Amino acid sequence: MRDIGDLQLKLRQFAKDRDWEQYHNPKNLVMALSGEVGELSDIFQWLNEEQSVNLDAATKEHTAEELADVLFYLLRLFDVLDIDLVGAVERKLDINAKNYPVSLSKGNATKYNKRTD
Amino acid sequence: MRDIGDLQLKLRQFAKDRDWEQYHNPKNLVMALSGEVGELSDIFQWLNEEQSVNLDAATKEHTAEELADVLFYLLRLFDVLDIDLVGAVERKLDINAKNYPVSLSKGNATKYNKRTD
Amino acid sequence: MRDIGDLQLKLRQFAKDRDWEQYHNPKNLVMALSGEVGELSDIFQWLNEEQSVNLDAATKEHTAEELADVLFYLLRLFDVLDIDLVGAVERKLDINAKNYPVSLSKGNATKYNKRTD
Amino acid sequence: MRDIGDLQLKLRQFAKDRDWEQYHNPKNLVMALSGEVGELSDIFQWLNEEQSVNLDAATKEHTAEELADVLFYLLRLFDVLDIDLVGAVERKLDINAKNYPVSLSKGNATKYNKRTD
Repeated sequence: MRDIGDLQLKLRQFAKDRDWEQYHNPKNLVMALSGEVGELSDIFQWLNEEQSVNLDAATKEHTAEELADVLFYLLRLFDVLDIDLVGAVERKLDINAKNYPVSLSKGNATKYNKRTD
Repeated sequence: MRDIGDLQLKLRQFAKDRDWEQYHNPKNLVMALSGEVGELSDIFQWLNEEQSVNLDAATKEHTAEELADVLFYLLRLFDVLDIDLVGAVERKLDINAKNYPVSLSKGNATKYNKRTD
Repeated sequence: MRDIGDLQLKLRQFAKDRDWEQYHNPKNLVMALSGEVGELSDIFQWLNEEQSVNLDAATKEHTAEELADVLFYLLRLFDVLDIDLVGAVERKLDINAKNYPVSLSKGNATKYNKRTD
Repeated sequence: MRDIGDLQLKLRQFAKDRDWEQYHNPKNLVMALSGEVGELSDIFQWLNEEQSVNLDAATKEHTAEELADVLFYLLRLFDVLDIDLVGAVERKLDINAKNYPVSLSKGNATKYNKRTD
């Protein structure tokens, strides 16, 4: 399961077995992703920074489930858009390395805040 | 890069090199994730379903970059919360298989809509 | 209640009565807003355009409740940030009128899609 | 402009003048709302609580513009769904008053965190 390609295939089959491919167009999946990230916001909204680092066991398990859901919809999006995940990751890592050179970005919240990507 | 663990280490190092770990607490990372998913919404908001499936090359590349950003913040969240991604994925796949048995969920939008996970 | 100022005062008092002002800082309220908008995404994610226009009575009432929640957190944000809602609305209407002149924007999805506001 | 009904009419006319009504179905407007809230997340993501309370003038003005955009899409949603804003607000205020009685909710973060609305 550590291999992302295997997981994508598994999720594709899960949707296919249930005839859910009709719902999994990119627009709908972006909304589903927003819904799941909204559940993460709901978990963390009233926690202060320290509390967000030290979750109790039940909240941590709940968070783990929501993170997995976000990952599932994200991998479905790569899949239905036919975007190669590994290629996209490598291109974006290169872009980020150029946009945020260590010398200019070190501990620099202001710069980091103002980025427009 | 296909191995998720390798990518997580790379992203951790990227943050460390820039002293950005101070910003990467779970609460902040959930907000960063929301911001990136908001950019995906921005891309797809006025497209109809057919247009969302047939993106032009520039929009597809833009989408690929945003998907990669979502993945980066998501992997950072698993990392800073010390949640094992593989374990979380396997547990959630089991839960989903129980919540959506093929026989009851096949092509069933209503059921799918009403789920509360 | 039609007057926005009255509603803001009512919501401020509601929070004050429950000692919730400690949670209602701008950062937390933005997350709460994200959470509520996520619930709207959850309602509409698998609906097609036509279904989204013709909601059944129960879904419409559910949607009305979520829209009210979004409005409440939005008004709290204006309030705790001490941003005058009427002034902000008038300034943004002016900006939008300049950015989207009727002659250039009429039925123009591409232009509308590419806007960066 | 303090009257919400007047603002809704103005926004409706703004869309009509540009033939944008074709894009403003509920599903699309929820995505537009998500996009705008994502921009608010982008502003606040790396700020700590204290910084989020004391925005510099430029950030405050940027935030005011985004808050206005959120309000515009929210009012369009009430409008195209034909949901009476005043009625929805009053019903939800009643629900909230019942769900969060002062005696049980006072300063009670745990209760507040666990609410499911």
